[in-house]
Parts: sequence; C-alpha cells; structure tokens
Amino acid sequence: MRVSYQELYGVLVRALGKAGFEPDRAHLCATLFADASRDGVASHGLNRFPRFIDTIRRGIVDVHARPERIAGAGGLERWDGRRGPGNLNAHHAMSAAIALSQAHGIGCVALANTNHWMRGGTYGWQAVDAGAIGICWTNTLPNLAPWGADNPRIGNNPLVIAIPRSRGPLVLDMALSQFSFGALESYRLRGEPLPVAGGFDTDGHMTRDPAAIEHSGRPLPIGFWKGSGLAIALDMIAATLSGGRATHDIPSRPEDETGLSQVFIAIDRCALSSVAEVERTADRIIEHLGVRYPGERTSEIRRTSLEEGVPVEPAIWRDVQNLI
Amino acid sequence: MRVSYQELYGVLVRALGKAGFEPDRAHLCATLFADASRDGVASHGLNRFPRFIDTIRRGIVDVHARPERIAGAGGLERWDGRRGPGNLNAHHAMSAAIALSQAHGIGCVALANTNHWMRGGTYGWQAVDAGAIGICWTNTLPNLAPWGADNPRIGNNPLVIAIPRSRGPLVLDMALSQFSFGALESYRLRGEPLPVAGGFDTDGHMTRDPAAIEHSGRPLPIGFWKGSGLAIALDMIAATLSGGRATHDIPSRPEDETGLSQVFIAIDRCALSSVAEVERTADRIIEHLGVRYPGERTSEIRRTSLEEGVPVEPAIWRDVQNLI
Repeated sequence: MRVSYQELYGVLVRALGKAGFEPDRAHLCATLFADASRDGVASHGLNRFPRFIDTIRRGIVDVHARPERIAGAGGLERWDGRRGPGNLNAHHAMSAAIALSQAHGIGCVALANTNHWMRGGTYGWQAVDAGAIGICWTNTLPNLAPWGADNPRIGNNPLVIAIPRSRGPLVLDMALSQFSFGALESYRLRGEPLPVAGGFDTDGHMTRDPAAIEHSGRPLPIGFWKGSGLAIALDMIAATLSGGRATHDIPSRPEDETGLSQVFIAIDRCALSSVAEVERTADRIIEHLGVRYPGERTSEIRRTSLEEGVPVEPAIWRDVQNLI
Repeated sequence: MRVSYQELYGVLVRALGKAGFEPDRAHLCATLFADASRDGVASHGLNRFPRFIDTIRRGIVDVHARPERIAGAGGLERWDGRRGPGNLNAHHAMSAAIALSQAHGIGCVALANTNHWMRGGTYGWQAVDAGAIGICWTNTLPNLAPWGADNPRIGNNPLVIAIPRSRGPLVLDMALSQFSFGALESYRLRGEPLPVAGGFDTDGHMTRDPAAIEHSGRPLPIGFWKGSGLAIALDMIAATLSGGRATHDIPSRPEDETGLSQVFIAIDRCALSSVAEVERTADRIIEHLGVRYPGERTSEIRRTSLEEGVPVEPAIWRDVQNLI
C-alpha cells in the first residue's frame, strides 16, 4: 500500500502536535520520519513511529527539551540533548557541525543525553544537502558481544559517512553488527537463511539461522574482531567528547534505552578546492566502481516514492492514523 | 632472535644515511621502523625495510622530498607529499593535524602524492602521545573487489582510531580486508585454515583456505557489503579533500604503488573538559569490557621488546646489516 508523501507527513505532524510538540518541531520531526519511509527505511520511519510516541508517554523522551550548547573551542562543541527527541537533537547537532565547518573548515559537535536518532542516514543526507562531508555515529545500549566475550557489552553503534555529489551523493549508513535485529526478523519471517553467518547460536557456533541468533542474543560484529574494536573506539570517543554516557551505562532493555552519546563531524569539501574539482574526482571514483555505491539505491527509492507514493504497512498506517 | 632496540635503531639509521637521508630525517625514519618491530608489527617494521630501500633505488620514493602545505582554511589543511617517504610524510601530516587541533579544537590534514605509510598505528600512537584523539586513513592500490564485483577495484584502505588514556591508550589499526595478504601467507605457511572465511576461491565460493584466496586475489572486505562501502567512502574523502589520486588511479602492482591520498584528523579531547573526566570515562569503558581492548597487547609487546630485545628474523636482519 502506498500513500502520498504529503498525506503521510500530514498525519505524522498532527500526531506529533497531539503528543505535545510545538508546531515548528512537529514539522521537522514529521519530515524526518516521513523522509525515512520515503527513502526505503520504514523500520526507522513510519514503522518506528508508534514506539516513538510510546517513549514520549513513558517519559523517556521530553518533547519540550531543546538541545543546549555547553562548551565550545574553535571548531569543537559539546551539546546537551536534555533527553529531547533524538532525531531533533541529532538534526540540530549536525546543523551546528555544518555551521562550524563553514567557519573553521571542519566542525565537530559531541552530543550527550540524547535519545535514539532513528534513521542515521538522515544526518548524512542533511550534510550533503548542505554541501558538506558528514561523518557521524551514535552509541547504543549493549546489544553486541565484544569479540572474545559471550554476552552483550558493546553497542552496534551505527556509523554514517556522507559525501556530496551532484549526480548522487554517497551516503553510507551502517550499524556495526552484520545484521540488525530487524533484518534477522525479516529473514526469519521469510523462512530464509542469512546470506552469511550473522551470529552465534546458544551453543556458541556461528550460524546463518536468524532465529537461533535472535534466541541467543549474539549477533556478530562486522569483521568479527575488527568491528568489535571499532565499536569500542566509537563509544569511547562519543562518551569522552560529549561528557555523556558510554554503552555500559545505557539501560539494556530496548524500551528503556536513553541517554545516548553521539558525534557529528562536518567538513567543508570546497574550502580548499573548487566544486568542479571535487565533483570530477567523485564522479571518476563512481565510474570506475562497476557496482552500486552506498546511497545510490536510496536515490532511486526516493524518486519512486515521490512519484508513486510512499510504501506503508497497512496495519501500522491504521494505528498511526488512530493517534490523531 | 632478539636485538636491543638501540642496536636495531643504529643499523637502520646508518642504512638510511647511506640511502641518502639527511640526518634528522634518517633519525625519525629509523625510529618509526624500529618502533613498528618493537611493537610487534615487524611486517611493517624491519621486514618491510629492504623493500622500502628498494623503492628509493627505483625512484618511487624521493628521500629528499619534504611535504608542502598547499592550502588551509581554519582547522583544515591540504598538503602535498611530493612522493617523499610515506612514513615521514604521514608523521608530518599528523603533527600538523595535532597542531591544528590545539588551535581549533579539531584539525584535519589531507595529504596527496604520498607513499605507503608503513605501519598505520604509528600515527595513532603519535596522536595519543600528544594527548589528542587521532583518526586517520590511507587509500591503497586496488587490492579488494567491491561487493558484487569479482576483480579488485577498491583498496583495503587501513583505518586508525586512537584515544589517549594514561593507563594504556586505545589504538585501533585495521585494514578493511578481513585478512591482510601477510596474514594469509602466515596461515598458509603454518598449514592452518583461516578462523573465518577470508575470501573467495577462483570458482567464486567463500573459503577459509588461505592459498585459494592468494591464488584468486579475492580477499573479503570486513562485513562483506559493509566494509566494501566503507572502503569506497574513505577513498572518496581522501581523494577529494587532498586533491590527490583515488584508488583507481594508483598503479596496481604492489612494487609500483605510489601517489596515495590520506586523511589525518586530530581532536583535542581536553578542550572542553578536564583530563580527569575523560580519563575516568575511558577507564570505566575498559573496566566494563571484560576482553582486551585494541592496543592493549601492543603495550605488552612493547614492554617485552624493551626489556628483552626486539624480535628480528635472522635472515632479514642479516640483509639489513649488509646495507650499511
């Protein structure tokens, strides 16, 4: 089932108004959720919306809290998210990083006390739409065993890298687990094995059986020991720069997850060279690649959604319409 | 066989003098090679030294070329490595990034026209020794097939992330291939299968047989499609920011590899908070981890090397002594 972007946006913005959002913030928050579904990431768009509203009702997310700048030194700033909506906080932080990059060539905002940022790619697209290279990551609740341990102690800490390009930006948006829990569920529901090993079963054997990994709670980090090390490093930078929580301090039940730490870096790609030069370099890399680049499919899905409507799960769409 | 650090350094510095290095640059270059062996990375320390001297003789590396600052905007600079020694260029670039971070909170140096930086972790240790968070990466010759292709078109683009900590810094130093060609060779010589799939055989099947991967030339990126995307993104940032070559422009025979592009980011971790606060946060992450952190083993190996001597391969040590 498909609905027009405007209709989807309209329902979301009214639901957010009823949930207590001020009009300007309801507008941006609805746009970010609608954009995620429009771009093919419904898991962090419409499908996540009921759970987002629930976090407001349960006091995890404070709809009125606006992020506050705590400290700054040149191109580096620390912000307090004050437990406000995670996507609004992250959008604000990337805006601040972009502004810093325009003044200093490179800017970095470390954000503490925030909530789940929903679709990470959002802030990569935000950077490239402003003509900046964007690099950002978030820590998460402990949902991944570090290599050598058998219980979750590190986060799958999604990492986003985005590079502007007028013929189609490169936007990489990846969690550091090989498969998200959402992906495991999709494979299980389709009755398919994973294309590669995705975790351990309860006996400690690597497996391609999604249900066995859901049962054990032991998905694999990308690159085994390498992704494990990367997750630890990203958590340590986020927590130390922001002054916020590290993964081990974040409540481990998904519905209680809050107090995340995030980093947003923006680089003015044209501070040192012409747009023409950097576009030519980027185009030549894509031409020589011979396969899809990260973000290419997103651009295609977006076009289809805007022409034919945004795909929605009928049951979830009905639930969300009932919120208004 | 072990030799004292001073003896190893002394032979290397004399060999570099004979190869044409000015004294101050011979000192630093010898230190970087000796440090790599001291820290347990002989593959990019002593064992790489004869090949490094060979690149000088063949005109790939110009021992007299010093890096030159081409452009700057606030915390962002572009440098030209002028095909000088890759480790000296990279060390200079990280120094410049650290200086920028002290003035601007965060600094970024993009370096073009350089050569192999030898051990990537060097520049991570350099950052943490200066009290800075360091993030750096290099592109390489095409040595990895992007996900969905069967021939090498992307680099394994090593990525280094380093975070200071007085009880032992975290230093992650990883190529984006699951196993380096050096690691594949080691497994083959020991007659052992890889612990996890490391690439494809010539029939396109994933395999744990190191010889089959050496034969096909198709190692796996970490995380399959994820590491492939990450390698593309890092190459594009390095080439566009530096104005230098992307992987597809770099000669594909290892002995001809030159003209690399690299990025060095340094962040002043104490610009916004006290040393005590960031150390406490880092210590608590390590305490809760329950497994080794990246860089922990390096610190142990370093201690042993300084107490008992640096391990050397007798045949290579003899070859290097014959250079002086």
